[in-house]
Amino acid sequence: MDLYTYYRSTSSYRVRIALALKGLDARHLPVNLLQGEHRQDAYRAINPQGRVPALRTDEGELLVQSPAIIEYLEERFPEPALLPADPLQRVHQRGVAALIGCDIHPLHNVAVLNRLRGLGIDEDGVNQWIAHWIGEGLAAVEALIGDDGFCFGQPGLADVYLLPQLYAARRFNVDLAAFPRILRVERLALEHPAFRQAHPDAQADKPA
Amino acid sequence: MDLYTYYRSTSSYRVRIALALKGLDARHLPVNLLQGEHRQDAYRAINPQGRVPALRTDEGELLVQSPAIIEYLEERFPEPALLPADPLQRVHQRGVAALIGCDIHPLHNVAVLNRLRGLGIDEDGVNQWIAHWIGEGLAAVEALIGDDGFCFGQPGLADVYLLPQLYAARRFNVDLAAFPRILRVERLALEHPAFRQAHPDAQADKPA
Repeated sequence: MDLYTYYRSTSSYRVRIALALKGLDARHLPVNLLQGEHRQDAYRAINPQGRVPALRTDEGELLVQSPAIIEYLEERFPEPALLPADPLQRVHQRGVAALIGCDIHPLHNVAVLNRLRGLGIDEDGVNQWIAHWIGEGLAAVEALIGDDGFCFGQPGLADVYLLPQLYAARRFNVDLAAFPRILRVERLALEHPAFRQAHPDAQADKPA
Repeated sequence: MDLYTYYRSTSSYRVRIALALKGLDARHLPVNLLQGEHRQDAYRAINPQGRVPALRTDEGELLVQSPAIIEYLEERFPEPALLPADPLQRVHQRGVAALIGCDIHPLHNVAVLNRLRGLGIDEDGVNQWIAHWIGEGLAAVEALIGDDGFCFGQPGLADVYLLPQLYAARRFNVDLAAFPRILRVERLALEHPAFRQAHPDAQADKPA
């Protein structure tokens, strides 16, 4: 498989964690968002939306959108599972994943922040915007996850989404002190081999 | 099942379509967002995030987040299927669903628009913001969907997400003329019994 990725893209990082937890290798094809490579025709031919990640399967099919790619990996390579067998546990894992993927991350991606700046919002306003959505969203995550281990015990889909979101929160200096469960998950994940392998700091395309 | 719903909430509308396509009945428990019922303690006890929809199963479990609820319905009540059996068709359906659910709808929900107004953005700016994200997102959807029938032939997950997004686009007067495939899907859905039953105009909580 080939993964079109950028080291600090939240949704690329999700797919990297899912691959690592499953012990799957994918060749990384970096797309430099800072240099605008995602907007060039060569990449638009991979993903018409011009966003990372994209995954090319061994059969040559191009897959886009991290939630769809991760569900594909789960179906194609079921073990180890990101989703437990129990239907309610599955919906809890997917609920936290969707909360992060729909209600937090989309509001602070780089295109959105640049659009805010284009409307005349200054950096203080942009930072307040980021802190508001990450804080409100993580408060809801804190209320939904469990008291032991990763979000729901063993590493799973919710953790695949949470760790990249926490990396973004740290990068934007969002205060996480009110979220002890989330901080517990972060501590565990930062020592877990698959999460370490997928971390932005471990990527070959991270600038020196 | 009990569905906590609001007639013109995009994500409530998605779950209503999924239920209707599967021929499932759920008692509707309206939550009036205009009157702030979603922010009151009674509803926060249902969903700590204070958002609709939420689904109470026949076993009394409370499920939140429309993407997770819809995947639950698909697993629990597999026929008729929203996702075809073929792995690549599944990822295509889920890719369009995620594009709409992550990259379009979160940017124009009412909380986000009110936050923009709070930053001093006037109504012209708000309308430009809405038109930008819906237009850019639907252009990507247009490139991904097929040339016949619903998004990918038979009604499926992508259509469950697309129709509520089009309802929002119409409400905000976004020009859809550049999207012939999307307009074809809209025409088909507006004549389909399940999509009609789930439409905001058919809801008991729609104001007279």
